[in-house]
Amino acid sequence: MEATSTATALRRLSILSSHFRTHCSYLQVSAFNCSSTDGENQENGCVFCLIVRGEAPALKVYEDDVCLCILDANPLCFGHSLVIPKSHFTSLQETPPSVVAAMSSKLPLISSAVMKATGCDSFNLLVNNGAAAGQVIYHV
Amino acid sequence: MEATSTATALRRLSILSSHFRTHCSYLQVSAFNCSSTDGENQENGCVFCLIVRGEAPALKVYEDDVCLCILDANPLCFGHSLVIPKSHFTSLQETPPSVVAAMSSKLPLISSAVMKATGCDSFNLLVNNGAAAGQVIYHV
Repeated sequence: MEATSTATALRRLSILSSHFRTHCSYLQVSAFNCSSTDGENQENGCVFCLIVRGEAPALKVYEDDVCLCILDANPLCFGHSLVIPKSHFTSLQETPPSVVAAMSSKLPLISSAVMKATGCDSFNLLVNNGAAAGQVIYHV
Repeated sequence: MEATSTATALRRLSILSSHFRTHCSYLQVSAFNCSSTDGENQENGCVFCLIVRGEAPALKVYEDDVCLCILDANPLCFGHSLVIPKSHFTSLQETPPSVVAAMSSKLPLISSAVMKATGCDSFNLLVNNGAAAGQVIYHV
């Protein structure tokens, strides 16, 4: 247990450190999807579903009944965060409008909080939807 | 009047033609803001407010009480569309959550329709929020 705890602490430190690099001038929030991990994209093996169920580690920035905002494990830039729904939908166009609305309505709050925490005054919000657009995790 | 009508028709043809180039493999939907026109960003001179009020031309893809989806006048790629609120808000974090929710809830419908119309199976959704992130029109 202690070894696991130490590994978790080191992983958290590593992720946090990567987020607090100072060379990047703005914050990127990749909402809904956009990340890079393993090739498992089925619901049972989906890395985002594992995180939602608490079966995989993640640093949570925000959580409610519909969605979760976490720090990206491999941030592309300072403050790179992911907003994901708690239910599994493979694409934005297949996600119920009510879920998209509930998630998106939290963006003003989340983006303000992350900008305040990081000291940035700008950010890009990006959704890569579909293979040709760079989607690699098929969980919106 | 006829000259104006001809000019409008030619402009529409030009915009449509630029959207139906075949060299681009995917559709980009730049939602909320992200475009390039003049330097006027005050509400009175805001190009998006002019379009919403019908005082500037645009090709409408979708419209409801809260938002408007138009084809970008200078598309970055095939099917480049813009989703903008009818009210003027300068940044995503300052936009009321209810407005963000109402706009975003239309994204499944709009993205499906544009993908069907263009024959694309993927798209990127992008918001450039703040000068450092590339925002040039300060209308979300």
